[in-house]
Amino acid sequence: MPYSPATQDQLLAIRVNAGIAELAQSERFAAAEEDMVEAIVEGVGAFAAGEFAPLNRVGDTEGARLENGVVRLPDGYAEAYSHYVEQGWNAISGPVEHGGQGLPFTLSCAVIENLGTANMAFTLLPILSVGAIEALAHHGTPAQQATYLPNLVSGAWSGTMNLTEPQAGSDVGALRTTAVPIESGEHAGKYLIKGQKIYITWGEHELAENIVHLVLARTPDAPAGSRGISLFVVPKYHVEADGSLGKRNDLRCVSIEHKVGINASPTCVMSYGDNDECIGELVGAEHRGLAAMFTMMNNARINVGNQGTQIAERATQQALAYARERVQSARAGSPDKSAVSIIDHPDVRRMLLRMKALTEGSRALLYYTGGQTDRGTLGDEQAKMRSEVLVPLLKAWATDIGIEVASLGIQVHGGMGFVEETGAAQHWRDARIAPIYEGTNGIQAADLVTRKLALAGGEAVVDLLADIAQDSAQESALFQLANDCASVAKWMRDEASLDDKLAGSVPFCTMFAVAVAGWQLTKQAEAVENGAAPSLKDTKPVTVRFFLDRIVPEASGLKASAMAGADPLYVIEAEMLAS
Amino acid sequence: MPYSPATQDQLLAIRVNAGIAELAQSERFAAAEEDMVEAIVEGVGAFAAGEFAPLNRVGDTEGARLENGVVRLPDGYAEAYSHYVEQGWNAISGPVEHGGQGLPFTLSCAVIENLGTANMAFTLLPILSVGAIEALAHHGTPAQQATYLPNLVSGAWSGTMNLTEPQAGSDVGALRTTAVPIESGEHAGKYLIKGQKIYITWGEHELAENIVHLVLARTPDAPAGSRGISLFVVPKYHVEADGSLGKRNDLRCVSIEHKVGINASPTCVMSYGDNDECIGELVGAEHRGLAAMFTMMNNARINVGNQGTQIAERATQQALAYARERVQSARAGSPDKSAVSIIDHPDVRRMLLRMKALTEGSRALLYYTGGQTDRGTLGDEQAKMRSEVLVPLLKAWATDIGIEVASLGIQVHGGMGFVEETGAAQHWRDARIAPIYEGTNGIQAADLVTRKLALAGGEAVVDLLADIAQDSAQESALFQLANDCASVAKWMRDEASLDDKLAGSVPFCTMFAVAVAGWQLTKQAEAVENGAAPSLKDTKPVTVRFFLDRIVPEASGLKASAMAGADPLYVIEAEMLAS
Repeated sequence: MPYSPATQDQLLAIRVNAGIAELAQSERFAAAEEDMVEAIVEGVGAFAAGEFAPLNRVGDTEGARLENGVVRLPDGYAEAYSHYVEQGWNAISGPVEHGGQGLPFTLSCAVIENLGTANMAFTLLPILSVGAIEALAHHGTPAQQATYLPNLVSGAWSGTMNLTEPQAGSDVGALRTTAVPIESGEHAGKYLIKGQKIYITWGEHELAENIVHLVLARTPDAPAGSRGISLFVVPKYHVEADGSLGKRNDLRCVSIEHKVGINASPTCVMSYGDNDECIGELVGAEHRGLAAMFTMMNNARINVGNQGTQIAERATQQALAYARERVQSARAGSPDKSAVSIIDHPDVRRMLLRMKALTEGSRALLYYTGGQTDRGTLGDEQAKMRSEVLVPLLKAWATDIGIEVASLGIQVHGGMGFVEETGAAQHWRDARIAPIYEGTNGIQAADLVTRKLALAGGEAVVDLLADIAQDSAQESALFQLANDCASVAKWMRDEASLDDKLAGSVPFCTMFAVAVAGWQLTKQAEAVENGAAPSLKDTKPVTVRFFLDRIVPEASGLKASAMAGADPLYVIEAEMLAS
Repeated sequence: MPYSPATQDQLLAIRVNAGIAELAQSERFAAAEEDMVEAIVEGVGAFAAGEFAPLNRVGDTEGARLENGVVRLPDGYAEAYSHYVEQGWNAISGPVEHGGQGLPFTLSCAVIENLGTANMAFTLLPILSVGAIEALAHHGTPAQQATYLPNLVSGAWSGTMNLTEPQAGSDVGALRTTAVPIESGEHAGKYLIKGQKIYITWGEHELAENIVHLVLARTPDAPAGSRGISLFVVPKYHVEADGSLGKRNDLRCVSIEHKVGINASPTCVMSYGDNDECIGELVGAEHRGLAAMFTMMNNARINVGNQGTQIAERATQQALAYARERVQSARAGSPDKSAVSIIDHPDVRRMLLRMKALTEGSRALLYYTGGQTDRGTLGDEQAKMRSEVLVPLLKAWATDIGIEVASLGIQVHGGMGFVEETGAAQHWRDARIAPIYEGTNGIQAADLVTRKLALAGGEAVVDLLADIAQDSAQESALFQLANDCASVAKWMRDEASLDDKLAGSVPFCTMFAVAVAGWQLTKQAEAVENGAAPSLKDTKPVTVRFFLDRIVPEASGLKASAMAGADPLYVIEAEMLAS
C-alpha cells in the first residue's frame, strides 16, 4: 500500500495543539518559523513516502536476520538510512553545539511520525539514537560528548538502551550486569562490563558506522536495587583520540528474537564481556544510572506514543483506499440494487470514521504533549508539569488505539484482512509491541495515579481537567467526561488506597487521555472553522464530532471500573484464581 | 503451554444456562442425563488435552502446506483425527438414523469447545463437517443422505462449505460458479460444476477418506442475485453404488492462503471443473440454495462464537500460569521489599480477572444460546425465536472478546508476549479470524437490528430485555444496561431510519450481548451460592462481580454511539473522506 503523508493534519496539530508560533517567539526556537516548519513537515513526508515506505513490507516478510554475528537487513535499508543521514533528518532537534539544528522537539515528533508511519520498525533505529543523545547531552562529560555526540546527532552512528535482563523486566533494579573499575593501564578509569541484556532494539546492525550502547550495570559493592545502578557508554568500536574508529569492543549479538511484528527491527540479546575485555565509561555519577535513564524516558515515551498515531494513520489510509475500491452489495433499503463501494455501507463508514477520529485524536494529543514539553525546556514550569501528566496518557492511550485502529483496518478488509499479502495485518502485528515497551501501559497508568496525580499537591491534574471543563459546553459529553475524570482523581487522592488507585489506573488513564484528546480536537475544529487548514474544512468537523459524540461517552463508561477498588481483586488467593 | 479443560465451569453452564436437566426430560434428549453429560464433558476434555492440545503449536509454526495438489499437515494431525473419529466424538449430536448419538446441540458445543480450546485451527475440520451434515440432513434426498451422512456423522469423511468467490464475499448473491444439468449418460440428472471458490476451510487434506463439498452455484438461466443460487453436493471422490469410493472428481485445491493465524487450518482456493468433468448433485430445490445454507448458518455461527470462548479460555490459562510463575518487583507500598509473583500486582490481577470474567461471561452466553437452540428443535417456538436473537450477539461479542482476552494475555506476559516462542501471540493471531468469517461481526449486528429486532413485531427483543431487567436489582448496573438496551431498541424500532439502525448496530450488539452474558452469569452465581459446583464457590462470585461492576457499566457507555445515527457519517462524500 502506498503511503501518503498526513501533512495538513500534522501542520494543523503543530500549529494549534503544539502552538509552534508561540514557541518560535523564544530566542532558542526562533528558527521554527512558519516556512521552516512547513519545509520540514513536507520534506520529511516526501522522504518517508519515497524511501522508508517502500521497504515496509519487505521488512516484515524478510525481517532482520542474524548471520555469524552480523545482523542483515533486507536490500535497500542501508541505502535509505544513509540518505536519511545525508539529508540531515536525524539532526532536527539535536543540540546545536554538536551539529544539530536545535529545533523544537515538536518538530522531531513530526519527523518521527512521518518516518514511522512509512515504516515503524525501521524508525526505531533513529528513535533509539535520540535516547542515547539525550543521555550523553545531559549526563556525559565534555570529552564524552565530543567523542560521541556529533556522530550520534548526524546519525552516522546509532545508539541503544540496555536496561532489560531476563530476571529484570519492568523491575530494572533487579539487574545483574557488572561494571568493575579498571585500576591501571591504557583503560585506567574506565570499567570492565560483563553481563547479558535482552530486548535490545537495533542492538546490532551494519547501517551505521558505530553503535553507541548505553548500558545499565552495577559497580562492585553497589547497594541492592535501583539505587545501585550506574550508566555506562559502551561503543561497538572503540573511538581513538583522533575520533577514528579503533578495534572492536568485546560485545556481541547472541541472538535476535522471533517476534509478532516489527520484524525489520532486530531485537537483540546482547552479551557484554564474553572475553572479559568489554570496556565502558561511566556516564554521570556512580549509582545514579536510573536517574540518568529517566532523563530520556519522557521523550522516549512520547516517541512510543507517536507510534500509536503512526500505525493508526497507516492502517486508516489502507482501509480507506480498500473500502473505496471494493464493490460489494447494494445499500440496504436502497431501491437501486446495484453494488456499491463498501465505504458507502453505514457500518463500514462507522469503522472508517472511528479509525480516522482516533488517529486524529491521538495526533492532537501527541502534538499538545510535544508543545508542552518544548515549553518545559524553555523554563515554563507549568508546562513542564503538564507535559509530565500528559506523557503516560499519550503513551498508553495512543498505543492502545494503534492496535484498535489496525484491528478495525483488518475488519474493513473482511477475509482479505486475514491474508498476510494484503498488508493490513502487518500494521496490527507491528502495533502490538507499543503498549509493552518503554514501560508497559500498566506502568504508565501506575505512573499517572501515583507520581503524576501527586504533582503540585494534585493541582497539576486538577488544573488540566478544569481547563477542559472550562472550554466545554455544559451538558456536553466532553464536559461530563472531564467531570467524571475529576471525580475519579478526587476519589483517588482523598479516599483510595494505593492498591485501589492501581486497580483503577488503566481505565482512569484511558478516560483522561480521551478527555484531553477530545479537548484538543475541539481546538482544531475551532481553528479550522476560523480558516486554518482550508483543505480540512469539510472533514475535520466530521471526525471531531464523531470523537465527541461516540468516543467520549464510551470513556465515561469506564468510570465505574476506575473506582471499583482493589478489594474485589483480592478476595481470593492467587493459587485459587489460577487453578 | 499445557491446557487444562474447564470442566467444572462448562458443566455449570450446561446445567444452569442451557438447562440440560429440563432438556433431558424430553423424549428426544432423554439420553442427556447427568451421568452422560459428565462423561462427555470430562471425556472430551481429557481427549482434547491429550491429543489436540499438543499439536497446537506445531500447527502454528509448520502450518498446512500445499505440495503438488496435496495438503500436508504436521506429523500427528492424521493420527489425532483418526482417534477422534474412532472414539465417536464427531457423532455426539448427529442424527441417530445415520449413526449419530442424537444428543442435544448443547453437548456438541461442549465437545467443540474443548477441542477448539486445545487447538482452534484443527477443530475447524469437524466444525465444517457439522455444516455439511445439517445441510444434507435437512435438504438432501434419502439417497443422498444414505450416501453421505453415515461417513460424515462418524467423521470418516469431512465436509466443506463453498460460498465465497473473489467478487462475492459478504454478498453471496454475486457468485458466478455454474452448474449445468447433464442430460444423458451415466450422470444424467446430475450437474457439471465449474468455477472457483476462495476461503474454503479445510477444502483439501488427507485426514479423512473423502471430502464432501457443498457448493453454491448458478444453474443456466437462473435469476440474478441470491434468488438464483442452488446448492450442490460435490464429493472429492465419487461414491459408487455400493458405498465404496470411486474415481476422483474434477476438483482441486489451487493454493492455500498465507494467513495471520489458524495456520494448521488449510484455507483453500478450490477450482471445480478445470476439465469440465466436475460432477455434483443438486441438494434441495433449484434456486433455493441460499435458504438451504441458512439452515446451517445458525449453528455454524454459534460454533464460531464458541471459538471466542475457546481462545479466551486458552489465553487466560496461559496468562494465569505465567503470572503466578513470573516474579518481578515488590508490591507497591509494601514494607516487604521482596519481589512477588506478578499476579499479586493490582493491575496484573485486574487484567487476569477481566480475562476470566469475559471468558466465563461468553461461556454463559454460549450455553444459554445452545440450550435455547435445543428447545427450538423440540418445537418450543419462543425458545427458537430467542435463539435467533442470541446468535448474532454470541457470534459477534464472543469473537470480539476472544481477541481482547488474547491481547490482554500478551500484555500480562510483557516483552515475552511479543516473542512468538512464548505462544501467547498465537492465540491473539488465531482469534483474529473469528470476527470475520461466518458473517462478519458487522453482518451479525446488521442481522440483529433488522431481522432480529423485528421478530414477533419486536417482542422477541423486548421480552428478552424485560427478563433481564426483571431478574436484576433496581439501581444495579445490569438493570441500567438492560434499560439502556431497551431504549436503543425502542428508538431503532420507532424512530430510526434503516441507516441509523445500521450505523448504531455494532455498539448496540455489544451492549445487548454484555447484558445477556451478565444476566446469565448472575444465574450461575446464584446456583453456585445454592451449592452447585462446589469447586467454583470461591472464584465464581469474584468473576461475576467483576463482570457486573466493571464490564456492564462500560457497555452502557456505548449507548450514545448506538443512537448517534447515520447522518453524521454521510456529511462528507466518500471521496473526501479517503483523500
